[in-house]
Amino acid sequence: MTGVVDFELDEPTLYTFGGAEAVALIQPGQILRTTTEDCFSGAVLTVDDLPSKVCQRFNPVTGPFHVAGAEPGDTLALHFTAITPARDWGMSATFPHFGALTSTHTTPTLQPPLPERVWKYDIDRQVGMLRYAARRSDFTVDLPLDPMLGTVGVAPSGGEVRTSIVPDTHGGNLDTPELRPGTTLYLGVNVPGALFALGDGHARQGQGEVCGVAVECAMRVTVAVDLIKDVPTPWPRIETDHQLISIGAARPLEDAFRISQHDLVTWVADLTGLDLLDTYQLVSQAGRAAPGNVCDPNYTMHAAIDTAILRHATAYGGAHRRLRGVASSLW
Amino acid sequence: MTGVVDFELDEPTLYTFGGAEAVALIQPGQILRTTTEDCFSGAVLTVDDLPSKVCQRFNPVTGPFHVAGAEPGDTLALHFTAITPARDWGMSATFPHFGALTSTHTTPTLQPPLPERVWKYDIDRQVGMLRYAARRSDFTVDLPLDPMLGTVGVAPSGGEVRTSIVPDTHGGNLDTPELRPGTTLYLGVNVPGALFALGDGHARQGQGEVCGVAVECAMRVTVAVDLIKDVPTPWPRIETDHQLISIGAARPLEDAFRISQHDLVTWVADLTGLDLLDTYQLVSQAGRAAPGNVCDPNYTMHAAIDTAILRHATAYGGAHRRLRGVASSLW
Amino acid sequence: MTGVVDFELDEPTLYTFGGAEAVALIQPGQILRTTTEDCFSGAVLTVDDLPSKVCQRFNPVTGPFHVAGAEPGDTLALHFTAITPARDWGMSATFPHFGALTSTHTTPTLQPPLPERVWKYDIDRQVGMLRYAARRSDFTVDLPLDPMLGTVGVAPSGGEVRTSIVPDTHGGNLDTPELRPGTTLYLGVNVPGALFALGDGHARQGQGEVCGVAVECAMRVTVAVDLIKDVPTPWPRIETDHQLISIGAARPLEDAFRISQHDLVTWVADLTGLDLLDTYQLVSQAGRAAPGNVCDPNYTMHAAIDTAILRHATAYGGAHRRLRGVASSLW
Amino acid sequence: MTGVVDFELDEPTLYTFGGAEAVALIQPGQILRTTTEDCFSGAVLTVDDLPSKVCQRFNPVTGPFHVAGAEPGDTLALHFTAITPARDWGMSATFPHFGALTSTHTTPTLQPPLPERVWKYDIDRQVGMLRYAARRSDFTVDLPLDPMLGTVGVAPSGGEVRTSIVPDTHGGNLDTPELRPGTTLYLGVNVPGALFALGDGHARQGQGEVCGVAVECAMRVTVAVDLIKDVPTPWPRIETDHQLISIGAARPLEDAFRISQHDLVTWVADLTGLDLLDTYQLVSQAGRAAPGNVCDPNYTMHAAIDTAILRHATAYGGAHRRLRGVASSLW
Repeated sequence: MTGVVDFELDEPTLYTFGGAEAVALIQPGQILRTTTEDCFSGAVLTVDDLPSKVCQRFNPVTGPFHVAGAEPGDTLALHFTAITPARDWGMSATFPHFGALTSTHTTPTLQPPLPERVWKYDIDRQVGMLRYAARRSDFTVDLPLDPMLGTVGVAPSGGEVRTSIVPDTHGGNLDTPELRPGTTLYLGVNVPGALFALGDGHARQGQGEVCGVAVECAMRVTVAVDLIKDVPTPWPRIETDHQLISIGAARPLEDAFRISQHDLVTWVADLTGLDLLDTYQLVSQAGRAAPGNVCDPNYTMHAAIDTAILRHATAYGGAHRRLRGVASSLW
Repeated sequence: MTGVVDFELDEPTLYTFGGAEAVALIQPGQILRTTTEDCFSGAVLTVDDLPSKVCQRFNPVTGPFHVAGAEPGDTLALHFTAITPARDWGMSATFPHFGALTSTHTTPTLQPPLPERVWKYDIDRQVGMLRYAARRSDFTVDLPLDPMLGTVGVAPSGGEVRTSIVPDTHGGNLDTPELRPGTTLYLGVNVPGALFALGDGHARQGQGEVCGVAVECAMRVTVAVDLIKDVPTPWPRIETDHQLISIGAARPLEDAFRISQHDLVTWVADLTGLDLLDTYQLVSQAGRAAPGNVCDPNYTMHAAIDTAILRHATAYGGAHRRLRGVASSLW
Repeated sequence: MTGVVDFELDEPTLYTFGGAEAVALIQPGQILRTTTEDCFSGAVLTVDDLPSKVCQRFNPVTGPFHVAGAEPGDTLALHFTAITPARDWGMSATFPHFGALTSTHTTPTLQPPLPERVWKYDIDRQVGMLRYAARRSDFTVDLPLDPMLGTVGVAPSGGEVRTSIVPDTHGGNLDTPELRPGTTLYLGVNVPGALFALGDGHARQGQGEVCGVAVECAMRVTVAVDLIKDVPTPWPRIETDHQLISIGAARPLEDAFRISQHDLVTWVADLTGLDLLDTYQLVSQAGRAAPGNVCDPNYTMHAAIDTAILRHATAYGGAHRRLRGVASSLW
Repeated sequence: MTGVVDFELDEPTLYTFGGAEAVALIQPGQILRTTTEDCFSGAVLTVDDLPSKVCQRFNPVTGPFHVAGAEPGDTLALHFTAITPARDWGMSATFPHFGALTSTHTTPTLQPPLPERVWKYDIDRQVGMLRYAARRSDFTVDLPLDPMLGTVGVAPSGGEVRTSIVPDTHGGNLDTPELRPGTTLYLGVNVPGALFALGDGHARQGQGEVCGVAVECAMRVTVAVDLIKDVPTPWPRIETDHQLISIGAARPLEDAFRISQHDLVTWVADLTGLDLLDTYQLVSQAGRAAPGNVCDPNYTMHAAIDTAILRHATAYGGAHRRLRGVASSLW
């Protein structure tokens, strides 16, 4: 199948966006099939493996991939056909001085850290469920499997190399449950070839990822890749079959909110030809918003609107629908 | 019907929580039927009525109501049986230096304000829709009616009197779309009689209320009132048939997030007997979160979890289910 | 001496701005001599008196004082002639979940609070020093006495009553070391009579008041009172012999910064006739800024500029110089 | 003079920390004499040169310099002997969507940007003054020359390359007026050789750098370089003849405050052997704090304490005093 590029991750070695040579070349229109390791680099296997002891580095990504013809000022479109747990278990943890309900590196206090603890989730891929099991009692409960990628991005602008922990205009550690199979992610291209990478699969996560760690899981990923030439994208955007979504990444959290709403309002005004204040009003009443993470070096929030409300205005020349078609032709 | 207290609002005169004499006495177990004026005090009738010109005061509330036997340390339970638009139109606006995508009183810049503009929505109560109409083009679109109360609160503690614009531990201007018919709001009582008041109906609002103004609408409200003795409630909480919801109100927005998540985690740990870190983990994977408003003097966010996950742990001695029963007996 | 009003505080009973009857009437031009109790209401006498155990209420203020002829839209000028420790000791403490290096009521975490501990400072009023003594070792060091009032404000607008813990446009718990003897504080009047009150003396405090508690001390205060008719003041301002100072109170801290800088830029532009951007530029290079408190419900920052740079532009019709003269006539 | 390394900057080419080869090797104990270009890369020569039109890139730095023997876990000490304007003029500007009193890239609003405008300052190096001249009137005023470097840093950890605009743990665009001649800057080493670079000279700046741009000026810099082996430094620190200073860089601004205070408290506790809460108390009463910048991607604040209060506790084995001696031996 000439339309497919397969890239199997051996050992996780990439922990940044930017600063690395491409591992494969992808033509626009091709499909990439690859694997991602979990955010613990695969080192946490039991509830006794404390991440601060057993992990050398966190949040490996697979890539970077060079997209033929991509130039600064273009937009990269990544349509996620499949994000599937590669194992039948996932791990989560509290990590010292990380998370929203603890003091942290950048919100320091004089209090001791919370205890470090690990939880293991059994994943039933057939049934589509995963099992939470308390550590201090025998309480268990099943939650729906809702796989996603926490980290997808391109090389940053200005020659920067950013750790994979950080979300920003280049994407990165967005940690939003909106990045599910069936969606298309749009990222502005900053360097020739775009040099995108992806990782940090979550079997599921709550909105806000309050303890800082989701149900971390290695993934098999299938993604249809496309390029929209000469169309810039200021902040990461997602299109689903029914919604347009803008993502802001910043601190404080209201700035992530402002960015996402500002991007959605200006995007919708641009797509529909509506006056800017008229669009502001419409988004104010019809928009949806939620946090992705409130724990990473930049917090993320998204702003969303139903495309039905916009009379199915077409974003990026219909890239999402086209990629969905490309993807389905695979099967 | 002895179980019902009717109170019709004549002229809006109350713009604070605290600092006013009760307008009616309600016994726990009784139902209050009342009306609320819109946030413009009813003064904005056409798109040419600029709020900054025609309004004397903003955000009137109806009340306060004295709940017999309520004492500091108790919890007031308000179950909203019905919140119904009292008119077949609603109004929205941009207001100078108010809203999330403009400089404001507390986030000042040297830029001129955005233009002030008014939008009128026709409401079809039969069909359950309202119509957005652009001001600078002939674009219209219908959105679902989703009525709610923006402002419900009790008298604050410490002898404070707060403007009805502010949300805080006493409730107030929460501006969250979660406060719909069918929900029960729990508020900690700070003064004898609780002295609750309500207002600021919205025919609908987007999450975050980005321009600062929802589809403002006078409402007819039916609310079943109950008292949970000797149980304090630190922050406003909502129970629906399927969810427990904690609300945080603060700036910056991450503090509203932290408060809501902290309250939900400690509440769930208390209800289920789960260990605190185990609860933190569970909420991290199963929780939902969204902004109410990101425009008021305090921003609000909510944290929610499905009660099914908690094996239907019973909050406040089953007050929500009981009040739903009381309410249905009305019809 | 007819120009002097004496008011001795017996028992602290006032803990709010607004909501109380005036205790004395003051004519513009008169001098008030009064006393203030410390923020512990005088209940912390030894290092074994933990505030959370021995204090009923915190931060009493003396007043309110009715200023004859004061109306909304006027500015109250308070020139502090003397702020003198009423005792030869002051107290400080860490308080559970209060302060900048701990989780708090509005920045909650799941960590336990820091220990509560009390420090006693001996004050030598003759030499003008106070002595810090460590609690866990015999380290001591003398620091300069630098007395100030943490809390000075007027009744808020809109019928609000605010706890004395909160700083805002009405003044209140500014907790800035800039409020020293020799300065004039300007506050916008919101209600007839202004109804100002003052308290929360500090023998000294660091910039930012990081642990949340200064060297708390009862004070004898002499203040010359004046009224500037028909001149509004949007945020608290201070004039010294050499500086104009604007104070912002908000969260997050950058908003307190923005408010203070915005107020200073617009104030200076108004006083000098300089173009707004030209003033922005001048303040950017010549301005000084510092935090007052980063622990109260609103944080405070101030922005300052030397009047020499402004060619001694005269603020409020020369009120500061005039009041300094009135004050010196006392002795 | 073998103890001196001279490096003259030809053309500015470096705009990052990390990601570049060293331009020179420096032995610990040696003195570096070099030059820095201004933040406009020297392209703004008159008030008609709008930066957004004439500048390709912003904030060049000179370097990086490899310090022999520097390894991760060490501390680099840079003692600034001289920072002298290389020209007799400096430039400042408002820049679209940059600065504290405008909407920005990360605090976006729907308002148009402020006008872009340039100011030129004549610098009199003999007298030590610079002249502000208004653009919309003939107002001028002389301000003291107070030269400093806005940007000094080392290569970041984790393989990151950061734009020179950003301040963080590696130093970078601290933009604090505290980085004056006579001070020693301590930076934790992240990569072999440390790879430090410096630039962004300011003839002076106000605290907070409110409009986002100081009096930008090319500089001649003399810096004595030393290495403290096996002593890590978590955040940038400055020592003067009389003060210890910790710098925090983060958003929101209270986090920059928290970081700086937390670092100062733990540093002082470590130097003096004082108990942690005792140190917290001492810093609360004796500490000084101020913003550096409230405009860059991370804001900065510093926390300072007089070493006299600490009985002249010796930091970093007396590096500051030793380097001051090395520097003076030059003349």
